[in-house]
Amino acid sequence: MTRHSNIHIISILYLISVFDTVMSIKIKKMWCIMQVSKRVLQLKDSPLRKLTPLIEAKKKEGKTFIHFNIGQPDLETPQCFFDAIQNFKGNNVPYAPSLGIPPLIEAIQGYFKHQGISFKSNEIIVTTGSSEAIFFVMNAICDPFDEVLIPEPYYVNTVSFMKQLDVVVKGIPTYASDRYHLPSMQDIETHITPRTKAMLLTHPNNPTGTVYSEYEMEMLKEIAIKHHLYLVVDEVYTGIVYDQIPSRSFASLEDLDDHVVIIDSVSKRYSSCGARIGAIASRNHNLMKEIGKLAQARLSAPTLEQIGAVALYNIAPSFIKKTAEIYECRRNVMVNALKDIEGIHVSVPEGAFYCLVDTPFHSAEAFALWCVEHFHVNHESIVVAPAQDFYSNPKSGAHQIRLAFVHDVVVLEKGLNLLKEAIKQYTFVQKGINV
Amino acid sequence: MTRHSNIHIISILYLISVFDTVMSIKIKKMWCIMQVSKRVLQLKDSPLRKLTPLIEAKKKEGKTFIHFNIGQPDLETPQCFFDAIQNFKGNNVPYAPSLGIPPLIEAIQGYFKHQGISFKSNEIIVTTGSSEAIFFVMNAICDPFDEVLIPEPYYVNTVSFMKQLDVVVKGIPTYASDRYHLPSMQDIETHITPRTKAMLLTHPNNPTGTVYSEYEMEMLKEIAIKHHLYLVVDEVYTGIVYDQIPSRSFASLEDLDDHVVIIDSVSKRYSSCGARIGAIASRNHNLMKEIGKLAQARLSAPTLEQIGAVALYNIAPSFIKKTAEIYECRRNVMVNALKDIEGIHVSVPEGAFYCLVDTPFHSAEAFALWCVEHFHVNHESIVVAPAQDFYSNPKSGAHQIRLAFVHDVVVLEKGLNLLKEAIKQYTFVQKGINV
Repeated sequence: MTRHSNIHIISILYLISVFDTVMSIKIKKMWCIMQVSKRVLQLKDSPLRKLTPLIEAKKKEGKTFIHFNIGQPDLETPQCFFDAIQNFKGNNVPYAPSLGIPPLIEAIQGYFKHQGISFKSNEIIVTTGSSEAIFFVMNAICDPFDEVLIPEPYYVNTVSFMKQLDVVVKGIPTYASDRYHLPSMQDIETHITPRTKAMLLTHPNNPTGTVYSEYEMEMLKEIAIKHHLYLVVDEVYTGIVYDQIPSRSFASLEDLDDHVVIIDSVSKRYSSCGARIGAIASRNHNLMKEIGKLAQARLSAPTLEQIGAVALYNIAPSFIKKTAEIYECRRNVMVNALKDIEGIHVSVPEGAFYCLVDTPFHSAEAFALWCVEHFHVNHESIVVAPAQDFYSNPKSGAHQIRLAFVHDVVVLEKGLNLLKEAIKQYTFVQKGINV
Repeated sequence: MTRHSNIHIISILYLISVFDTVMSIKIKKMWCIMQVSKRVLQLKDSPLRKLTPLIEAKKKEGKTFIHFNIGQPDLETPQCFFDAIQNFKGNNVPYAPSLGIPPLIEAIQGYFKHQGISFKSNEIIVTTGSSEAIFFVMNAICDPFDEVLIPEPYYVNTVSFMKQLDVVVKGIPTYASDRYHLPSMQDIETHITPRTKAMLLTHPNNPTGTVYSEYEMEMLKEIAIKHHLYLVVDEVYTGIVYDQIPSRSFASLEDLDDHVVIIDSVSKRYSSCGARIGAIASRNHNLMKEIGKLAQARLSAPTLEQIGAVALYNIAPSFIKKTAEIYECRRNVMVNALKDIEGIHVSVPEGAFYCLVDTPFHSAEAFALWCVEHFHVNHESIVVAPAQDFYSNPKSGAHQIRLAFVHDVVVLEKGLNLLKEAIKQYTFVQKGINV
């Protein structure tokens, strides 16, 4: 039945494609228009970044903003990163090896070793941020019309990569009432079709902050084995976990070597987003060989930033623990302040550094825009990320916003006061009352 | 007729796709194999990089190599690049804006201004090397099965990107006898079908060194307008032109604003390959808007390297002239040495820093491998790039190699002596005579 419906979909897509070609030629000839690809037309502007031009314009008018919208840590990038780059002795910045410079691969091995996880050097490929890592992995696993299961709400840029690859995202709904934990194995299995190639998750999760339990990990393992699925896990928030919740990497699951693919990055743990250094780690040698071809085609990840990243991955694990403590304190400040705001609900995050918040507004996107355009207290306002695009059905998250707690407590409290005031004022605006 | 054959191809591809899905499910179920995508399986290892593991192994045995295979300049990266990075005052390396940091966009505008070319700030997008630039542009222009014309031999990694996008490369054959200049307009037009979306060229050309004449530029302009095609021009070797051949950017062509897309990078002109900073410049605002979405999805290009690149793009144009003089001297050394080797033919390059060489061997790839594995003079050997993958039909270039003159004259002469000896010895090996 599923296979038949699959073929049915392909037939329709084929007919659309033929029709499109004929029509696009006609349009081109008629209007002399330089067309862009249908592939790129279906992409949306990033909900996290599309307000940027308006924000820049408002800043020029003297307005200031506290940014809750981007997961850009404010903490210092460890000095060893800068030192390593300054100590670079060459007088030429050459291409790095396509798979990464050997000292960095070694440092990443060491990082996993601290977690009791063993990867061989040929089981790691360095990438330009976790963005490239996700794109490479999905490119190597999926053909057009293949399907990937992702718990939703999800990290929105992932979906943009899937669309570029013509891969179908099947969202597995999760709910604030469960703190966004996974549904049952049976529920998840209803989303699996013959075209399902992989499950993709972020652990700890962005935007929900969910840390998957042992039970959930074992369940995902069982599903992966039973249905021959890859288990691709974005672990860039590893170690940023609260309330002493036990947590481990999916790479530590046994008997799953051919299935598990770990995505990592220095961006979040080491407050080094702009370094654009990430990694893919997997014991599936066949897959890694294929990903290696993608890495060769783009030549290399940036060389100096790789040298800096060696120092970051070599930092003792206690650093990450201390970092998590800082974020835990901020989380508590944010959650407490949010609980104090009438009409909203927050699911308390177990890890990462985001709060997903239910607002009382029909369109949180309109609220976000209003905050940038119209709201201010002494010329200061806030930027929040509307959550609708974190869902395969935008309606599910239309009323939600994501807030990143990437500021010190003083800024955070100031921003949350602004949010409280903004919600109050916007409630009036919604009711048609002038403020 | 062409449209019919096109639809015919799509029908076949559709049937193959359905058959493949059914079969792949059966295979998966039967053998529990974790499969990779068909898309990635069709990619080849880069001919420029696939010998790397063998070379590394040989180096460990004490063998040394002179590398002619990679376009990795040996010249010093200008000190201002390192200084700019060292002068970075922040204590956190943040994401850069997705479209690039404003000072870099301004510096790139200035670089074009020196050539009398005007780009507005919203007509430039910073990328992670020209690799990402080519990928973004082709992604934004082409859908699966669309076609792009590329003069062949071509820059091989481009084809890898096309395959990832399911875009069809149509090679326009060019020949050593014409110094790889373009055929007539009529000849080029025979390759155009309703699915042709763009022409893509490298100017000056890699691997042929061809600098396109005014006549060729005007011809390409005429074709682009007549057939509503994008003209995507990789100009990373701009300014590296010899024999005082007149040359200008395709961006200076008038009445072609919607068609021309320029790809640039700091890699070659400023000997900064590892910086991975490139750019897209186009006055087609609709296209740039779509490319902006791709840029947003991957967040940003590396921040510190962008800061370094500002300094590079701000270097006075006289620097590029001096750089070109250095390469011209090397080109003369290489061409003269090659003319002295029996059995080979070299087309004298007009720009860039490669010589494309006809060898007397049926398989230049086997020769390249033999050089790494078996040939040495006092434990020293050479690495050359076999050219077969620079052609849509590998047979066309099976006997060719590409040599990069990216070493000082002393090293170059030593390497060319080794090449002469290698060709002599391999000729004997081919004849079955022990050496």
